[in-house]
Amino acid sequence: MAAGLIDGAALAAETLERIAATVHAAVEAGARPPCIATVLVGGDPASHTYVRMKVRRAERAGLATRRIDLPASTTTERLVTVIRSLSADPEVDGILLQHPVPAQVDERAAFEAIAVDKDVDGVTLSSYARMAEGAAGFSSATPGGILRLLDRYDVDVRGMEAVVVGQGPILGRPLSALLLARGATVTSCHLLTRDLRSHVERAELLVAAAGRAGLIPGEWVRPGAVVIDAGYSDGGKGDVDFEGASERARLITPVPGGVGPMTIATLLDQTVAAWRASTSIS
Amino acid sequence: MAAGLIDGAALAAETLERIAATVHAAVEAGARPPCIATVLVGGDPASHTYVRMKVRRAERAGLATRRIDLPASTTTERLVTVIRSLSADPEVDGILLQHPVPAQVDERAAFEAIAVDKDVDGVTLSSYARMAEGAAGFSSATPGGILRLLDRYDVDVRGMEAVVVGQGPILGRPLSALLLARGATVTSCHLLTRDLRSHVERAELLVAAAGRAGLIPGEWVRPGAVVIDAGYSDGGKGDVDFEGASERARLITPVPGGVGPMTIATLLDQTVAAWRASTSIS
Repeated sequence: MAAGLIDGAALAAETLERIAATVHAAVEAGARPPCIATVLVGGDPASHTYVRMKVRRAERAGLATRRIDLPASTTTERLVTVIRSLSADPEVDGILLQHPVPAQVDERAAFEAIAVDKDVDGVTLSSYARMAEGAAGFSSATPGGILRLLDRYDVDVRGMEAVVVGQGPILGRPLSALLLARGATVTSCHLLTRDLRSHVERAELLVAAAGRAGLIPGEWVRPGAVVIDAGYSDGGKGDVDFEGASERARLITPVPGGVGPMTIATLLDQTVAAWRASTSIS
Repeated sequence: MAAGLIDGAALAAETLERIAATVHAAVEAGARPPCIATVLVGGDPASHTYVRMKVRRAERAGLATRRIDLPASTTTERLVTVIRSLSADPEVDGILLQHPVPAQVDERAAFEAIAVDKDVDGVTLSSYARMAEGAAGFSSATPGGILRLLDRYDVDVRGMEAVVVGQGPILGRPLSALLLARGATVTSCHLLTRDLRSHVERAELLVAAAGRAGLIPGEWVRPGAVVIDAGYSDGGKGDVDFEGASERARLITPVPGGVGPMTIATLLDQTVAAWRASTSIS
């Protein structure tokens, strides 16, 4: 028996089309388009690629973009000044500071310089706490994308036994908080977890967010489970053995084409929401 | 075999004595004492009692106190103004807004008016997110008190299977976040949890924070577990069947005399830390 596929690429494409139509109509009616500002510090090639992809998708959907690339030697003070100025700029709706920043920069201080109502990547402490409270606000983009996928496939997490493997600051930890706020019984596993298998085996909703290729063999997956593989390793491998897991799961995300495409779609969707809030366009 | 008792009353008394000695020495040397401001809105008798207890303990330990009682009809705007003024006052080190406030008041807005470096009750969004990050900052008082108890009894939670029953905003939820930040594998249970017993049975560290007397029968407790009963119901009952649980646990808190006394001690200890930070007294 093969699991149903959770098609993130399709939902992402649909989301981007919806955004493009909304923006097109507003611009036709005389409004300015939503604008996302990206801030990149230093020359890390992977970070350059991520920013380029985000900018390209934004532009394709009709958003305005502002791209700020700073040298690797940038100080915390300078970066905070740049971000504060974007926070104060009425023409900028969303701000993305590409992670990671060089070691001399205090990343937390830089994130906190992002105005909460422009924090479309959900990186401020305030956004985090709002996620945990189940209050309105912007989610971290990847966890937010996962919730959109669950909604789309009618997975109601209330009361579900959810197990999140990996507790990084932009993926596993905020996702645990979001699932708990939505009413799942959440177990948060990580590198110090002693018997990972026993947790995976009882998961009705399994989210793998460790970034360790093949960490979870298919035979650990509970029959009928919903499996979200948000892992990514060199070579584009997920954390879960897809072949084995899809014999047992009810629904499963492929890698690639599952969680990945939803991250940018969520980022842009949240930018459009910020733009709507600031311009009162409905 | 009876479990060892986790004596919260003794640790609280010791903490208060230490605070009193510190404050006494600083005042003798010419410093102003630490000052905690309490804000109470309306006439709820239980809230009055809590505030009175906190003020009395603070004064007994040599702290200055400022008590602000506002009428039940207070607006959000007025309350925010009062709290902002305390936040700006250099003679005030810690601010406690007694929960709950009357229904017409936006409690979140009032909490957010507390300066983060005076948030000795750990109620701001920023304090919450810092707890979850494992960063420096003030904890919610009761969860912070529980961590102090665990430290005192040499319970290292790294890698432990921790189960937190109850996910209220000032107790269970921040405690789950704190235990996770310290490296426990944390399962967060609540009213929607389907099979509470199965989670309790595998808990090496069980924290009961539901406020439902007798929710957890002793026979559910895993042999050798550490049991923290932070529940409180009318009549001063805990969530755990103490008699039964103490036959199986390794360590257990009594109710009363376990978690309860540590809450005020933690609040005052955090006020002293805020005072130290603002006055550079060591």
